[in-house]
Amino acid sequence: MNVNGRHYRTIWTEGEGEDETLFIIDQTSLPHEFRTRPLRSVDEVCLAIRDMWVRGAGLIGATAAWGVWVAAREAPADDFSGFMARSVERLRATRPTASNLVWALERQKRAMAGLAGKDAVRAARAEAQAVADEDARFCRMIGERGLRLIEEAAAKHPGRAVNVLTHCNAGWLAFVDYGSALSPVYAAFDAGIPVHVWVDETRPRNQGASLTAWELGRHGVPHDVIVDNAGGHLMQRGMVDMVITGADRVTICGDAANKIGTYLKALAAADNHVPFYVALPSSTFDPSLRDGVRDIPIEERNPDEVRRVSGLTEQGSVESVLVCPPDSTARNWAFDVTPARLITGLITERGVCGASERDILALYPEFQRARGQA
Amino acid sequence: MNVNGRHYRTIWTEGEGEDETLFIIDQTSLPHEFRTRPLRSVDEVCLAIRDMWVRGAGLIGATAAWGVWVAAREAPADDFSGFMARSVERLRATRPTASNLVWALERQKRAMAGLAGKDAVRAARAEAQAVADEDARFCRMIGERGLRLIEEAAAKHPGRAVNVLTHCNAGWLAFVDYGSALSPVYAAFDAGIPVHVWVDETRPRNQGASLTAWELGRHGVPHDVIVDNAGGHLMQRGMVDMVITGADRVTICGDAANKIGTYLKALAAADNHVPFYVALPSSTFDPSLRDGVRDIPIEERNPDEVRRVSGLTEQGSVESVLVCPPDSTARNWAFDVTPARLITGLITERGVCGASERDILALYPEFQRARGQA
Repeated sequence: MNVNGRHYRTIWTEGEGEDETLFIIDQTSLPHEFRTRPLRSVDEVCLAIRDMWVRGAGLIGATAAWGVWVAAREAPADDFSGFMARSVERLRATRPTASNLVWALERQKRAMAGLAGKDAVRAARAEAQAVADEDARFCRMIGERGLRLIEEAAAKHPGRAVNVLTHCNAGWLAFVDYGSALSPVYAAFDAGIPVHVWVDETRPRNQGASLTAWELGRHGVPHDVIVDNAGGHLMQRGMVDMVITGADRVTICGDAANKIGTYLKALAAADNHVPFYVALPSSTFDPSLRDGVRDIPIEERNPDEVRRVSGLTEQGSVESVLVCPPDSTARNWAFDVTPARLITGLITERGVCGASERDILALYPEFQRARGQA
Repeated sequence: MNVNGRHYRTIWTEGEGEDETLFIIDQTSLPHEFRTRPLRSVDEVCLAIRDMWVRGAGLIGATAAWGVWVAAREAPADDFSGFMARSVERLRATRPTASNLVWALERQKRAMAGLAGKDAVRAARAEAQAVADEDARFCRMIGERGLRLIEEAAAKHPGRAVNVLTHCNAGWLAFVDYGSALSPVYAAFDAGIPVHVWVDETRPRNQGASLTAWELGRHGVPHDVIVDNAGGHLMQRGMVDMVITGADRVTICGDAANKIGTYLKALAAADNHVPFYVALPSSTFDPSLRDGVRDIPIEERNPDEVRRVSGLTEQGSVESVLVCPPDSTARNWAFDVTPARLITGLITERGVCGASERDILALYPEFQRARGQA
């Protein structure tokens, strides 16, 4: 998507041959500063994922895939496979919840099987590019599929904007381009359908306030930031036509792990008969799991993300401020799981389907093999 | 309750006769600075309520009652009743949702009926003191009533602390002393029952992180601050034994207006079979209303409360930081309404009752007269 008149993806390379370098947008400095940075070693790639310079289901996967290419270029000739095995393991350990990470590393493993040296580098580069291109293409298709849902809502309420509520950031910044939850919004906006987004700020890291609001603003989409507490009230008052969120992992039965707080919005949507959609590319499915609440591992992060909030001071510098007493402790789980029963539909690159094993398998028969048996 | 070894209420007077002055704790500077300040005119009292130097259902009522006394001392002899009528109207207009405000002003009106000058001042002083003393006494009784619920939970889970989740601040800072939702927690802690509180930070103004955590910390009660998004996840994982919140207004049918986000926690509690209690003194009931979602007016506040977060910088100064892009707008509703069907029980000074017209009238037969007919 465009930033200051130039088209960007969230991850790309510059230069050629030996000089080719991986670049990302450093999302920790948004919305107050737009900064790109190179990732020159597998160490830096791991740090970028773990410290969330890049984040979001699709982008974590694409970064891991490119990270394997970075590792392959770094690997010493006399320990190529050992270095690669350790690098893949380190990449896998950066974030525990997103299934795209594991999925992308598995793709690279298959692509590089039996190769070493320059052949392996070439194969890793091609596969990383394929992962990134596919991510962008699938997200564009999610936008086309979801557009119809927004069109239907617009037809029901002529003369006013369709109000979409979203949680966290599942826009183009969370993928390589377009996004999952926001892709239908961009598609609707570009098609001239009046649309307005309620942006949950999404504590603790405020990806809604800092990333979703920034993305929507750059594209010109009308939006209002709200606190994470507000969605229920808005739905009670008929001010939300649909909720669309992303997901970090979806089981074969349709349970969806997503940013903490998503479950609360799904409960409010169900209580107020507001359709609740989860948008995801197929790489986010984990067909090996059934019961998401029981089986999806939930990352617990640094409590200082809760105790402190980062933003722009009156003086124009970005600082973090302590919001609780210095002697109070905090806990910080990053995700929760929304049970399938609360989800109206999954918006995927192949179409919209129910959040159930039957409907998911109807769209993705290839998951039959990997299907969890628990 | 105690602060630095000295007992405080949230509102009190110092001095005698002409010199007697109303004092409050300025809650806007907590938790980073403990500051008291005098309120010397009805202008200042209105400002204190509107700008939330004082806040919370009970304390708003007590401050309004003391505000009438301040006004009576200020009123010119030649326009006593006109000045008083305007002052009461200005006090009433400071905050629209809390029913304690209107209730306290009505009490003062009755107490001062037919009086002027020194007699009126004396009557207003006595009534303000009575409102404050009754608030503290009722809150202490709420603690005794609620203590039994915590005792029962402790008996079910021997060997571990009872986990109570609360939203916003309904502790002693929200009343004259003891608090509503936190009063049972203090009673349990003082009785030696192991108790641990999950403190919702409560955006936008963070009264949980800044006030509840501070109160609990000063009293020594174990607690962890969590983001408002986390409660559903904790309940899914069995990490919450009960939710206790306060309320700003409760209808005769048991619908409860409270800080925005309370409704979302009530939905999660119902979905996970976690008991959800609302603690309130009788002054918080509004027997004239039935359907809370339809009829309780919800205050919309300055969007900058959403766009900015205030806290302590590394350098030790309190500053507010912008968390969204400068060009993004925000909306800011202060309360939501939790329907009675989601409330396990109301903890009042007269006992615990169901959130229904029948149960409320059984405890408070005097509401029969004022009962809404809609």
